[in-house]
Amino acid sequence: MAQIIDRDRIEKIIKKTDLTRLISYMEEAFASYSGGRAVVPPVGTLTFDSPPGDVHIKYGYIKDDSYYVIKIASGFYENPSLGIDSSNGLNLVFSQKTGQLETILLDEGYLTDVRTGLAGAVAAKYLAPEKVYGIGIIGTGTQARMQLRYLKGTVQCNKVVVWGRSEESLSAYKASMRSEGFEITTTLEINDVGRQCNLIVTVTPSTSPILELEGLAEDVHITAVGADTAGKQELGTGILEQADLLVADSESQCREHGEIHKAVQAGLLKGKKILELGEVISSAEHQRRPAGLSVADLTGIATQDIQISNFVLEQLQN
Amino acid sequence: MAQIIDRDRIEKIIKKTDLTRLISYMEEAFASYSGGRAVVPPVGTLTFDSPPGDVHIKYGYIKDDSYYVIKIASGFYENPSLGIDSSNGLNLVFSQKTGQLETILLDEGYLTDVRTGLAGAVAAKYLAPEKVYGIGIIGTGTQARMQLRYLKGTVQCNKVVVWGRSEESLSAYKASMRSEGFEITTTLEINDVGRQCNLIVTVTPSTSPILELEGLAEDVHITAVGADTAGKQELGTGILEQADLLVADSESQCREHGEIHKAVQAGLLKGKKILELGEVISSAEHQRRPAGLSVADLTGIATQDIQISNFVLEQLQN
Repeated sequence: MAQIIDRDRIEKIIKKTDLTRLISYMEEAFASYSGGRAVVPPVGTLTFDSPPGDVHIKYGYIKDDSYYVIKIASGFYENPSLGIDSSNGLNLVFSQKTGQLETILLDEGYLTDVRTGLAGAVAAKYLAPEKVYGIGIIGTGTQARMQLRYLKGTVQCNKVVVWGRSEESLSAYKASMRSEGFEITTTLEINDVGRQCNLIVTVTPSTSPILELEGLAEDVHITAVGADTAGKQELGTGILEQADLLVADSESQCREHGEIHKAVQAGLLKGKKILELGEVISSAEHQRRPAGLSVADLTGIATQDIQISNFVLEQLQN
Repeated sequence: MAQIIDRDRIEKIIKKTDLTRLISYMEEAFASYSGGRAVVPPVGTLTFDSPPGDVHIKYGYIKDDSYYVIKIASGFYENPSLGIDSSNGLNLVFSQKTGQLETILLDEGYLTDVRTGLAGAVAAKYLAPEKVYGIGIIGTGTQARMQLRYLKGTVQCNKVVVWGRSEESLSAYKASMRSEGFEITTTLEINDVGRQCNLIVTVTPSTSPILELEGLAEDVHITAVGADTAGKQELGTGILEQADLLVADSESQCREHGEIHKAVQAGLLKGKKILELGEVISSAEHQRRPAGLSVADLTGIATQDIQISNFVLEQLQN
């Protein structure tokens, strides 16, 4: 029978691991995807009206690997009123040789949070300006914490400006991140972020633009993490139109939803080159980031779930 | 934490249950699907070349129900050489209210076998000729056993002709089904089935037609169960072209694969009416089967997995 691993054990494994090691697994997630070494069918989606919720099924495998992975993640947005987390999920790990279920990772969505945070770190590693003088975090939720946590060590900067919609959420964010060694300023005024930061991460479930082109520094990188489903948007389309470098985790997926989708719909990206993050990682040429405005649009791909599951399984075997 | 139920316990629950009760759950599976009361996204598929295997993810929910279900089923065809079943799988049952995982049914594919067998019984209940004088089973595998087992009580006939590709598989089939009260004749000659039977069930993984129009009785019903993936086919397309009544579990799915797909591809079904099994069940008009040739094309739909999971969960709660 399959082994079943609970969230506590998974958290312990992740938290004791050196960040550069986790990042290397995530780099392989993007490189295998863009290099055609992975089989990743379209994301399965299930939506509910009342109470509102959505479920994503991301699945696939890296060729010549041991496992294939089916990851289920849900968001039920009225859960907090019941005292339950809105997000939930699990990773199922099967043998590529026999189809047998090997391990159920009952991570309750934790591994999705981790791999999404790591993706932000990978984007920053390759795309942040050489000297980061301020990190901007737009959003105050779980993933806004993850993003900042995983930037430590990747980016040599401890000055952080956090934008949120309420003083309460900003204070809670600041309190929870103080122990991580950052110097955090909070603001309700979005322009403070553009004025003080040249590495900005957007991490909200917004359905209309929060960050606009006006007021941004000339040499700035933006990683957009929030728009993981159709209808979500965090960046004004002008940012994508004017970007000197536009990077997607998956070009096909970002054209279907995400920030790039919105700009394509508006007819603003005609003839514009979109690089995949895996291409940036794998190619010496693309690793020389040009000065200017760069954007990474991250919608989340199955190879991330595969790689984080691979990592946990290897640790369990050791 | 989610409860985890193993195959033994699931088998016990199913085996102690009256067949008519199980059939009523499967009728609701088809009726809810065709009545638009279910949300069923397209099937997710993952295929492997070496060793050859395929994985199907069927998922969805019946509106106003308690649960949504994600069913994963795999077939790895070289497993028997390792002493492992080729098919495997599990059903994941989640709350429609919170998205939380409620129950993992580690049935190893058993519930898929059961719900597929029950679908054959439902098809026979509504579509078999009034007097069945011979049941033809084409195929000798696990599902060929399931189909016959679940016809008992649904159809008043104990004369069975079984066709297979080898004497060994036929003897094994006959031996395993003897205790069920059927009078079984085996044959390597496909025409024996058409000559002696007016209810025929095809249950093979064939990729080319086994049963042809010639030699069939005038008033006969055929249920085709085998063609669950693109490329599979058991019936000559002439059978579908000449059918007086053509029934699909899901018209859209059968047009994409299954027997109907093959006949559509050959241009033989232009203007031909295809009824769904759920429409037959729900409509007094369609329940009057006309004499002649009827065909039910069953490719397997998520509401069957939902309903069989619903049934098991209700039993666990009692």
